[in-house]
Amino acid sequence: MNRSEIDSASQRLHGDMGPFLRQTPLWKLPGQALGLACTEVWLKLEHIQVAGSFKARGMLHRLRSNTLPGSGVIVASGGNAGIATAAAARHLGVVCEVFVPEVSSLAKRERLRELGASVTVTGASYAEALAACLVRQRATGALLTHAYDQPEVVAGAGSLAQEIEAQAGLPGCVLVSVGGGGLIAGVASWFAGRSKVIALEPEQAPTLHAARAAGQPVDVAVGGIAADALGAKRIGDIAWSCNGLIHDALLLPDEAIRKAQLWLWRELHLAVEPAAALGLAALQTGAVAPDAGEPVCLILCGGNVDPASLNG
Amino acid sequence: MNRSEIDSASQRLHGDMGPFLRQTPLWKLPGQALGLACTEVWLKLEHIQVAGSFKARGMLHRLRSNTLPGSGVIVASGGNAGIATAAAARHLGVVCEVFVPEVSSLAKRERLRELGASVTVTGASYAEALAACLVRQRATGALLTHAYDQPEVVAGAGSLAQEIEAQAGLPGCVLVSVGGGGLIAGVASWFAGRSKVIALEPEQAPTLHAARAAGQPVDVAVGGIAADALGAKRIGDIAWSCNGLIHDALLLPDEAIRKAQLWLWRELHLAVEPAAALGLAALQTGAVAPDAGEPVCLILCGGNVDPASLNG
Repeated sequence: MNRSEIDSASQRLHGDMGPFLRQTPLWKLPGQALGLACTEVWLKLEHIQVAGSFKARGMLHRLRSNTLPGSGVIVASGGNAGIATAAAARHLGVVCEVFVPEVSSLAKRERLRELGASVTVTGASYAEALAACLVRQRATGALLTHAYDQPEVVAGAGSLAQEIEAQAGLPGCVLVSVGGGGLIAGVASWFAGRSKVIALEPEQAPTLHAARAAGQPVDVAVGGIAADALGAKRIGDIAWSCNGLIHDALLLPDEAIRKAQLWLWRELHLAVEPAAALGLAALQTGAVAPDAGEPVCLILCGGNVDPASLNG
Repeated sequence: MNRSEIDSASQRLHGDMGPFLRQTPLWKLPGQALGLACTEVWLKLEHIQVAGSFKARGMLHRLRSNTLPGSGVIVASGGNAGIATAAAARHLGVVCEVFVPEVSSLAKRERLRELGASVTVTGASYAEALAACLVRQRATGALLTHAYDQPEVVAGAGSLAQEIEAQAGLPGCVLVSVGGGGLIAGVASWFAGRSKVIALEPEQAPTLHAARAAGQPVDVAVGGIAADALGAKRIGDIAWSCNGLIHDALLLPDEAIRKAQLWLWRELHLAVEPAAALGLAALQTGAVAPDAGEPVCLILCGGNVDPASLNG
């Protein structure tokens, strides 16, 4: 993955900006407004992207980069990747099948159906839903989208970093939540050492942290408050290949993530999911202490949250 | 009220930008992204202003424009004006007393106390709470803030319009929700005929509409979904003096307002209160049909909402 691939992705997505994809606001605030010692914080409001997360960029780019068969698109996901795939498929007028495990929420299934997807509920776990999805994909020949480990998906996610730079220039550092690593792979490949890129993971879902400790991707047990978005069991191969561009990989406890999520709602009226709150949690806990004078950019990566859960 | 007064207000507030007041994002979207026929919609995300509404501008300006007595600031309000006054007083380090009626919500009282205000619950109605507030004000000499009908409050609200123009230039028209009229007075005075300013009111809280019909401010019965923010009984004198600058005053049914509020949450992940949804409701119902090619600006004026209420 390199900058020119991300540039190409941004250009390919250009025609969908507006009718579908949104250029999300980048909100600059002095650190003081967030009770922080740093000079300036940039909040990239990607939680108000279409389909409620950055995933729309990668999924649309995957669809735009391939010939779409009559059998359409297929994905196994009960979360943001599924919602983004369904939304992108509807935008392009192709059918979409989504396989979700029995543990997925009724609300998410309903949302997928509203987006026109055909939803199959199968298997006790994500792995079982994925297995059934792959069997079906071989039968129909539909285009498979993967939540994070396909080059087109990563390049699409990287368009977010390109957009940040176009809006505001280079930040001193960028804080990125990591699950399977699709977003950080795109962001790190775009900034390519020109800004510090720091990975943040919940203690209970430490895919990149564990891989860096082991020297290679390893399976980890996942759980906790952000598992529905960051609950990949293993860092993606593409993200792992970008590891050298990632300055640090830090872990945060669920309590700090929850506290930051509630703070974003109560003080800034931003309704984000837990996965989008790791950046603020890292600053609030002091896990990340930006150099004085350098802007720090937080990517609020998703907003698919039950609003009632914001009543802390 | 004129543009130079609003310019002065903007300058006076300048030193508080960042530590307290926020320059809120203006988000441009093609009408298509909102399912509308118009070319471009500007969403002014003022619901993420400090204290959750545009009121912070006016209240801070009122405080900044007067000598603050040792007895501090006093206000009668169970809503956004009270929260904004308390927040502004805390920012300036002065004490704040808020009088709220017995019907006010426990959540709002708790929020006021969190902001350091001394809260007095008294009277069955807002009018009774106000009467008690005025008795107290005469005894202590505290500075009284009014939710909408003081020149400094209106000029502060007008800084929002100045900011819109600085961010994006002149829109074709601006849609403004009206209760007592503080916001529209500031907005209409700033644009002063250079953009069309259209007033929107709930059918159940038609202060400006009724005044325009009667040729003068008259009391109206108020109720409905947005009464906690737009439930003034009579249009303010300052707003009425700006009536000639207001292109039209339209009424919207509660169902359309609620539908637009839920749409903003479900499709754009923006959590706003009902009062902030009138602009979209006006476009969705066709009550306002902007000229092709002219950008229409919606001011999302407040976000103090129980998030659970967004589960439509």
